[in-house]
Amino acid sequence: MALTTIGFDADDTLWHSESHFLLTTDRFCELLAPWTQASRLQSPSTGDSSQRELIETQLINIERRNLQLLGYGAKAFTLSMIETAIEVSEGEIPASAIAEILRWGHELLNHPVELLDGVNATLDALAGSYELLLITKGDLLHQESKIAQSGIAPIFSGIEIVSNKTADSYQRVLHGRALHAKEFLMVGNSVRSDVLPVLELGAQAVHIPYHVTWALEEHESTDLQAEQFHSCRNISELPALLSSLN
Amino acid sequence: MALTTIGFDADDTLWHSESHFLLTTDRFCELLAPWTQASRLQSPSTGDSSQRELIETQLINIERRNLQLLGYGAKAFTLSMIETAIEVSEGEIPASAIAEILRWGHELLNHPVELLDGVNATLDALAGSYELLLITKGDLLHQESKIAQSGIAPIFSGIEIVSNKTADSYQRVLHGRALHAKEFLMVGNSVRSDVLPVLELGAQAVHIPYHVTWALEEHESTDLQAEQFHSCRNISELPALLSSLN
Repeated sequence: MALTTIGFDADDTLWHSESHFLLTTDRFCELLAPWTQASRLQSPSTGDSSQRELIETQLINIERRNLQLLGYGAKAFTLSMIETAIEVSEGEIPASAIAEILRWGHELLNHPVELLDGVNATLDALAGSYELLLITKGDLLHQESKIAQSGIAPIFSGIEIVSNKTADSYQRVLHGRALHAKEFLMVGNSVRSDVLPVLELGAQAVHIPYHVTWALEEHESTDLQAEQFHSCRNISELPALLSSLN
Repeated sequence: MALTTIGFDADDTLWHSESHFLLTTDRFCELLAPWTQASRLQSPSTGDSSQRELIETQLINIERRNLQLLGYGAKAFTLSMIETAIEVSEGEIPASAIAEILRWGHELLNHPVELLDGVNATLDALAGSYELLLITKGDLLHQESKIAQSGIAPIFSGIEIVSNKTADSYQRVLHGRALHAKEFLMVGNSVRSDVLPVLELGAQAVHIPYHVTWALEEHESTDLQAEQFHSCRNISELPALLSSLN
């Protein structure tokens, strides 16, 4: 059965996203620095870099704890930052700092979409030979708004925004389009979300790492040895890779 | 062309929602009461009830201002409550009060689904004669979780979660199912979201008011005179109404 359909992840595959979250995390750790002195997070010998690490670890733990309830995206991240700020400061953080965090959340949601290098040319090159799908997770309104802003929506024959990327959610997408797994290949930056659940269905996947990976998308590399999937260093290598598969 | 498909709104049409938000708003206004004394919101002659009204008005204004960026749902509501608390208290609100607001947000997202009276029997009565669709807006993950919890998902031949209910979004739903507007009737509690955009497409709509309406869903009644749609006092009247249309 021939490959007919290529699915693309969006955040960190077609446009920059995690780099904005990372910059916000940096500002967040700076904002909280004054409160880590007195806090239980601080051990006597830790310097600036491990202070930052401790705040970031606390943020990630709270994001992980909230994931099932709040899901993915900038609103969930903002709520988790506020919760972390209150915990780390042991309730001492002033409202002005919380207002700053709210502004960062708005900035993340308002950030202009910046396509990764090579995205337009690659999609153009593939559109003649394959049906292209955009399959993304996160906040519905924010994803819709980024897709509209990106200018690349018309090249996709379908756009699917899902709350989480599991084998089940991919199965629903394939089923809705009467696609067999063998006809489908997924492209994305997250082994956890874009590769493993797709392999589980018997479809193919191409991993294109982004220069930073969100902690909750990280995947133990030791598990990867046994998995069979393709990799590119950047999206421009994709057409040649797909040709080599045929 | 015969009516074949009935669309149902979910929040406040199939299950309770706004009543939980209203209870949270009550607690929010109580929480902020100490800060309204010194605030610009307070005019010398206003008593308790108008204090509450002033806080609520401020919350609604901030929700309206955030709507395009944050969209609908409990996460957006929580972020707007926090923003309102900081504004109304002029930055004086302590972190412990913000933590309380975060907990209310989690409670809203965790609240068990309570079907409205008559929902099960009405859906059962209609399922033999019509295709039933569930068409809801708001937070993707929270809506999915409520649909799963409700136990009524299997009766629907399709479930659509949209970021906003406009004529365009209904058009996409109808188009995706190759439905003509004349084959479709929408049922919901919001004139603004469930009735007017559907009438605009030339489809029919039934308005079933919920006992409370969120301010941003309110519709000027003067505009309604010219509109042609059906009304029921509760969902149990729907089968008889639909029979009378044939």
